[in-house]
Amino acid sequence: MKGKLAAAMRNLGLCVALAGLTACASGPMDVSGTTPGPLSIASEGSFFIGGHDVHSDTLSTVPNYATSGTVTVGQVYVSYQVPTHARPLSLTLIHGCCLTGKTWETTPDGRMGWDEYFVRHGFPTYVIDQADRGRSATDIETINAVKEGKAPVTALPALFAASHEAAWAIFRFGPQYPQRFPGEQFPLDSQSGLWQQMVPDWIASLPTPNPTVPALSQLAAKLRNTVLISHSQAGIYPFQAAALSPNGIAAIVALEPAECPSATGDLTPYTKIPILVLFGDYIDQSPRWAPRLNACRAFADAAVRAGGHVQLVLLPDVGIHGNTHMMMQDRNSLDVANWVLHWIDTHVTAAAS
Amino acid sequence: MKGKLAAAMRNLGLCVALAGLTACASGPMDVSGTTPGPLSIASEGSFFIGGHDVHSDTLSTVPNYATSGTVTVGQVYVSYQVPTHARPLSLTLIHGCCLTGKTWETTPDGRMGWDEYFVRHGFPTYVIDQADRGRSATDIETINAVKEGKAPVTALPALFAASHEAAWAIFRFGPQYPQRFPGEQFPLDSQSGLWQQMVPDWIASLPTPNPTVPALSQLAAKLRNTVLISHSQAGIYPFQAAALSPNGIAAIVALEPAECPSATGDLTPYTKIPILVLFGDYIDQSPRWAPRLNACRAFADAAVRAGGHVQLVLLPDVGIHGNTHMMMQDRNSLDVANWVLHWIDTHVTAAAS
Repeated sequence: MKGKLAAAMRNLGLCVALAGLTACASGPMDVSGTTPGPLSIASEGSFFIGGHDVHSDTLSTVPNYATSGTVTVGQVYVSYQVPTHARPLSLTLIHGCCLTGKTWETTPDGRMGWDEYFVRHGFPTYVIDQADRGRSATDIETINAVKEGKAPVTALPALFAASHEAAWAIFRFGPQYPQRFPGEQFPLDSQSGLWQQMVPDWIASLPTPNPTVPALSQLAAKLRNTVLISHSQAGIYPFQAAALSPNGIAAIVALEPAECPSATGDLTPYTKIPILVLFGDYIDQSPRWAPRLNACRAFADAAVRAGGHVQLVLLPDVGIHGNTHMMMQDRNSLDVANWVLHWIDTHVTAAAS
Repeated sequence: MKGKLAAAMRNLGLCVALAGLTACASGPMDVSGTTPGPLSIASEGSFFIGGHDVHSDTLSTVPNYATSGTVTVGQVYVSYQVPTHARPLSLTLIHGCCLTGKTWETTPDGRMGWDEYFVRHGFPTYVIDQADRGRSATDIETINAVKEGKAPVTALPALFAASHEAAWAIFRFGPQYPQRFPGEQFPLDSQSGLWQQMVPDWIASLPTPNPTVPALSQLAAKLRNTVLISHSQAGIYPFQAAALSPNGIAAIVALEPAECPSATGDLTPYTKIPILVLFGDYIDQSPRWAPRLNACRAFADAAVRAGGHVQLVLLPDVGIHGNTHMMMQDRNSLDVANWVLHWIDTHVTAAAS
């Protein structure tokens, strides 16, 4: 009972003298163990950003459902938790290829996800499903049109599902399936929990810009003061959103972005906000990631020369080793989270208020 | 500050004498207002149930992603929250047609969803995305096979997206779009928030039984003591899961099931657990729902004659009026939730322990 009361008071940031209560902690909770104390939530829920209505005559190839009518497509699902005594800065988590917002939740081996960890550190935390992924609706009109003979086979959307074997190398568990890099930190004994969370990817069939980009811009404007934390495929989206408008974007943290802005393009949008580009381990052993790191380094160097506050960091260079592309699920995921939080605390103005 | 401390203590079920603290409540929180107190969470997260690995040679029609390899399909996403001082009985929420687990979250007009409301009432609450929906992966192999000329157009999956206009009548906002039933309770001023949450439905292309059924059976066995609360299309799944095994299923609450078990089939599985079948208003004015109600009534009568504890209730008959098919999002959604919770409290044994 005392422990629970103390935990509740820590959540509340209180330190009250109670008869018989010998200790009363303040400051961040220690949530690195397996049994953290209660999580105190001020508000939680979900909503959508964006989307537009379209009329279609190929909505259904199933009896009892009308083929003609209006549907809404292109919207982006957002779920959130705001802790009690929240900081004035929020975090927005944007998953990558072939995945959904599940990326940031409980790890495949059952440990706390970054979403909860960030909330426990006082940040209102927003998690999206990219447009046409997860709880953000896909658009099936063309598939139905082809099935009904109203459109040619070539009109079918270009889709892909990343195989376990392909993802193994892309996620840098090792050079190729099923070889492991020595010291890699992904919980491969629980790999089935990762394969279960992978979903087909419709990105190659979406309009330009990807509807996720304007949705992120709208979301940042709504949240007023949020750090856009992207992963992999989504890496370029926060930059593109910042190019639309800096409104509400407090910083960008790009975790192993598949693409950085061009080093030779207009860098003005990226000189106004703190930017961290973070890579894990084994990059030089990956034909997919080594050139991407180089391109991001060129961008970071150019943005710094243009007056920006852009930092590119490899985790091994700050003493954190063995990280795969899925660093938010690696066994040392909370070490990485702590490093990111420290960067935010020291580089993003609002975080200190 | 006092208010927050009192709220925290209510969450903890504590009543401690503190200097200067004049009141210390116990019992259920009043969360009917717009600003409920903090929500105290003991644990939260997500996981998957089920799924199986398949080898495919048509995983991708996008460059840079391998066409051959292994993917996992048929799994079911589950997210959960367990409050502090949780009851020994959990609730599992199973959404219906053209929707995802978002069904139970924040309503289109921004009010608290049933998911959070149930947690605030002490129930560990589990929310699923049906197989091939939301964060549970779809299987796109056949679409890619057709696009590559390896399968005929007729092999394309049968898919449908419910239009706003069709959903209007199916959800009983009125007899037909855009007419309203007098006194209907759906927040139609915020209807765009409902259209944003609708997703394409792959159910007609899935194996039999729907993979959601064995997943629910596995989930109930894992949770040991859970009430399966279904909506609409998902209505038959908990019954089918109970027919597989009663293990872990404490009760079934079917909200406007599209289908009940046959009144002339084997009713044995349904005589072992308390069952509530609940319908809203305007049923007799709906050509879609009136016959479904009749079939469910025949099932309920037959199951009672067979010795079962099965109750079929129309909300207007218990004094709750104006409810559409989307009763968990109607303006009086928490009145309906309270009625369901009272039924559980009085009919499900473990709820009283």
